[in-house]
Amino acid sequence: MIGIDWGTTSLRAYRLAADGTILGRIEREAGILTIPAGGFPAALEAAIGPWLAQGESQVLLCGMVGSRQGWVEAPYLPCPAGPAEIAACLTRIPHERAELWLVPGLEARDAGGVPDVMRGEETKLIGLLAALGEAPALACLPGTHSKWAWLEGGRISRFATQMTGEVRAVLLAHSILGRMAGAGPTDAAAFRRGVRRAREAGGLLHHLFGTRGLGLMGELSAAETASYLSGLLIGHEIGAVQPAGTVLLAGAEALTKAYALAFEEYGLAWRLDDVDLAARGLHSIAVLREGSALS
Amino acid sequence: MIGIDWGTTSLRAYRLAADGTILGRIEREAGILTIPAGGFPAALEAAIGPWLAQGESQVLLCGMVGSRQGWVEAPYLPCPAGPAEIAACLTRIPHERAELWLVPGLEARDAGGVPDVMRGEETKLIGLLAALGEAPALACLPGTHSKWAWLEGGRISRFATQMTGEVRAVLLAHSILGRMAGAGPTDAAAFRRGVRRAREAGGLLHHLFGTRGLGLMGELSAAETASYLSGLLIGHEIGAVQPAGTVLLAGAEALTKAYALAFEEYGLAWRLDDVDLAARGLHSIAVLREGSALS
Repeated sequence: MIGIDWGTTSLRAYRLAADGTILGRIEREAGILTIPAGGFPAALEAAIGPWLAQGESQVLLCGMVGSRQGWVEAPYLPCPAGPAEIAACLTRIPHERAELWLVPGLEARDAGGVPDVMRGEETKLIGLLAALGEAPALACLPGTHSKWAWLEGGRISRFATQMTGEVRAVLLAHSILGRMAGAGPTDAAAFRRGVRRAREAGGLLHHLFGTRGLGLMGELSAAETASYLSGLLIGHEIGAVQPAGTVLLAGAEALTKAYALAFEEYGLAWRLDDVDLAARGLHSIAVLREGSALS
Repeated sequence: MIGIDWGTTSLRAYRLAADGTILGRIEREAGILTIPAGGFPAALEAAIGPWLAQGESQVLLCGMVGSRQGWVEAPYLPCPAGPAEIAACLTRIPHERAELWLVPGLEARDAGGVPDVMRGEETKLIGLLAALGEAPALACLPGTHSKWAWLEGGRISRFATQMTGEVRAVLLAHSILGRMAGAGPTDAAAFRRGVRRAREAGGLLHHLFGTRGLGLMGELSAAETASYLSGLLIGHEIGAVQPAGTVLLAGAEALTKAYALAFEEYGLAWRLDDVDLAARGLHSIAVLREGSALS
């Protein structure tokens, strides 16, 4: 089978054996935002056409490809939800040569009744659950919109999104903090300093302006600013979530490294998971779908 | 005398009688960011030339005109500071026809030792102190960078800046929240809803993404989004400051109206001050300077 994690900025395709072994992988900068109207079939062909020609016909897709801006809109499934609920709620995409199925997104409501959504991360979480089983755990998938998910009894019981990455990006590109920030490598000491600052009183909006104050007084260099700001925002994210126990961390390397530093500053235990969670999750869901199709 | 509040985006000049009565006022969109290199003398002449020609010669200036990007850089005076300390620390700007003095900015350090700065607001606070005397009070001057100042014994004992207005502006202009926001008048109900949301658990970064969730699920309209976001951010600002007692509120009308609504949601008492605080403060400082010059 073929599993595809098709997000906003990239497409990752996996050719998977029946036991889930990854036989091939393709990564393209063909995120859904780059696809013109009606262009999804051609983009799919460009990515996995050779595998289809070699006889693969089962394709499971997850991610923003199932959003309103994607190929076909898939529903949001309410939490709690696990592999079985997700496998039972796939959306078929009509296609001439292959059987295409779309994984639904998930919806959760927090204590205030406000809705939260994910698309793509649910599949990575299913990948985590494949190894975790029924044990309770808290997972952190950092990103533009970081996802924190509480796993319980083999399902995703609830989750909360934090807009950390996007807030960092817009502040660096468009605010007074970006104007004081200079280029420079990631600075672990400045990052840790930002995390420690986040644990102090005053609130995020005050701490953001404090970054400016530090720069103005020569107490934070231009090269340190972006790292300090990352620490500040990730520190506030962790402070708001208040994790307990060991956090399961999965995501791109630079981000997970940063979150790991922040967990250290908070005295939190964490465990890094591998990077092919989406492939593992797509495989789990495909196996369940085939099982239910046969029964 | 002439008092000028010369900020980033505008210039407000007041012609003041010896007792502080405002005899004339001029407002121009000649903020310091619009002034070309070496252009400050001409911009001053364009604004108050007629008053100088009529015999005024004492000019006191406050605001970003005294910043590194301004005409001449004035120092930051450490808190606590009151009218006497400020009047004793004016910076002279050389000028052919008039005696120009620049009010210093203020610097404060919070419990974490992080520096905070203001330029222009110190003069408005001196204006508040002129009416308040020695009584303790908490003042809120909302804006791009909202200033909260603790007044005590006739001086500004400390202050804290919250980056609320700028964060709102960059999120609306450049984030996913801006893309879901539509034009619409200020919506008091949506604003109050945002303030109430800010009082719930989850943190600002989660609440920001919740705004997106509400929009996606059709529970917040495009026209309501900007007002809800304002309520959310101002609510977090107030929650971080944790004011006690009656807040003295001063600023532009639309902003003070919004903050007043938020104070109501928090069950906080507030008192609105008038809009000519800068004129009152400039007069207070000028009187003290003349007094000390004579002694």
